[in-house]
Amino acid sequence: MSESLLVYSHEMPGDITTDTINAFVDGCYPQLGSRCVDIGDKFAIAEYDLTEVARRPGGYISGPDQFRLADGALWFLALSATGQLEEMTVTSELSIRYLRPAVGEKLFARAELDSKSRRSVVGSVSLWCDNEEEKKVSVAQGTYSLPLA
Amino acid sequence: MSESLLVYSHEMPGDITTDTINAFVDGCYPQLGSRCVDIGDKFAIAEYDLTEVARRPGGYISGPDQFRLADGALWFLALSATGQLEEMTVTSELSIRYLRPAVGEKLFARAELDSKSRRSVVGSVSLWCDNEEEKKVSVAQGTYSLPLA
Amino acid sequence: MSESLLVYSHEMPGDITTDTINAFVDGCYPQLGSRCVDIGDKFAIAEYDLTEVARRPGGYISGPDQFRLADGALWFLALSATGQLEEMTVTSELSIRYLRPAVGEKLFARAELDSKSRRSVVGSVSLWCDNEEEKKVSVAQGTYSLPLA
Amino acid sequence: MSESLLVYSHEMPGDITTDTINAFVDGCYPQLGSRCVDIGDKFAIAEYDLTEVARRPGGYISGPDQFRLADGALWFLALSATGQLEEMTVTSELSIRYLRPAVGEKLFARAELDSKSRRSVVGSVSLWCDNEEEKKVSVAQGTYSLPLA
Repeated sequence: MSESLLVYSHEMPGDITTDTINAFVDGCYPQLGSRCVDIGDKFAIAEYDLTEVARRPGGYISGPDQFRLADGALWFLALSATGQLEEMTVTSELSIRYLRPAVGEKLFARAELDSKSRRSVVGSVSLWCDNEEEKKVSVAQGTYSLPLA
Repeated sequence: MSESLLVYSHEMPGDITTDTINAFVDGCYPQLGSRCVDIGDKFAIAEYDLTEVARRPGGYISGPDQFRLADGALWFLALSATGQLEEMTVTSELSIRYLRPAVGEKLFARAELDSKSRRSVVGSVSLWCDNEEEKKVSVAQGTYSLPLA
Repeated sequence: MSESLLVYSHEMPGDITTDTINAFVDGCYPQLGSRCVDIGDKFAIAEYDLTEVARRPGGYISGPDQFRLADGALWFLALSATGQLEEMTVTSELSIRYLRPAVGEKLFARAELDSKSRRSVVGSVSLWCDNEEEKKVSVAQGTYSLPLA
Repeated sequence: MSESLLVYSHEMPGDITTDTINAFVDGCYPQLGSRCVDIGDKFAIAEYDLTEVARRPGGYISGPDQFRLADGALWFLALSATGQLEEMTVTSELSIRYLRPAVGEKLFARAELDSKSRRSVVGSVSLWCDNEEEKKVSVAQGTYSLPLA
């Protein structure tokens, strides 16, 4: 086992749960701002912490805040799909499209797995406010790059 | 009704079907190379005509051929979602990710509607070979721009 | 003049400068986090306020922080290219690619104009740390949508 | 040297020229449809063979044809930047934005290098018709993935 794996990565004996993901994030990057609220091996749902987030004029949740949550949801998905809690799983590229003003008390993102290879995880993400999952505020698609073994 | 609508666009009295879409394409852009094989108001499935398409070394369907089909499927979706057979509904932007080598006899794409506004239609697209819809060869996401009324 | 233009938009008699852009942002969205440091009608350079930004493990500037600055630089460019200080000029889509770890004291982005139409402004963005403009940490490309007159 | 390198890849003793690139393409993928017309270690210019290409209604060069050329120019750039004529250097992801109708006798693309790593080459591409390089018809940005040594 390489030193970097020793230090940063935690192979999971069992399935990865929302608790293990949130505990992992609290340990290595507590300022992430996104929390995992549901997880499977082919999807992840994340919620954004809007407590201290400044709204755009009009009360809208800003585009970069939506991007940050999309990126977080995709990270949770990559952790779950690979079965490795690994800090060095990083975004390689991500594109986002804004569909309508994001107005609400809560912001959620669902990331779905498109593929997993030795090199990368690709997923598609939808974002919505409150309980209106059908009324997407933005969609994203992108790639997480996995550390080479 | 403006001249451009008179010439190019055909408002549909009933629902748009695969036949009306394929007849529309045969009329205005027969070299499109993609054919609609299933359609709803929130999705479209397209098949690529591989007859005269040169394969890449190794027998792979090339990336640009996959992009062309993704773009076609999204166009069919935009026609159906807006209910207007309209030549001037054009791609504004499209991004694609290649997931695995595309090897097969047939190539399909499914476009799903993310949103529709007065200005644009946004959709997400998955591509696969033969009957292996679960084994995506590429995914795309993009925007069709609608003519301003 | 429509009410929305009356309220939100400020047509500029002369050229737009970094001062007019920064004053406009301070007025309508002081939490933006990005400041304009150079501007022309075909480019904009922005700097990110890293003061209270949490670094990723390893001291890296996070991907979403880079995205936020890229988005800010493109906004400044859209304001300058259209000659209108306009809140309702909003991102329509933006894609980003991460090239190397972003390590440094300062983070900059240069947005260059690719096109301007009645509907939108498209631009390409490069990001770098400190004075190493040649050593890009990420690149982005995207579209700002203009309010319909 | 692995078998795949033995079979597919040709390390170049000297600099890569337009002639070596075009001869390489003629050897392995003659139906590419794009020809290299200028090359450096940080840029490549490609021209599209429009001879047998069907135009869209209105005489426009289609979006997928533009994408195909953008992809070709980025491939030439990847070959040159890595110094290896390598079939298995393949597109990983590519996004394109259409800026204005593409009308002209000739279609060109310039790809510029954003970064090169052991894993990938990232570049930005501009397309134009005839001699109007300043009047971009589309822009693209994307990643070529390099075979792992």
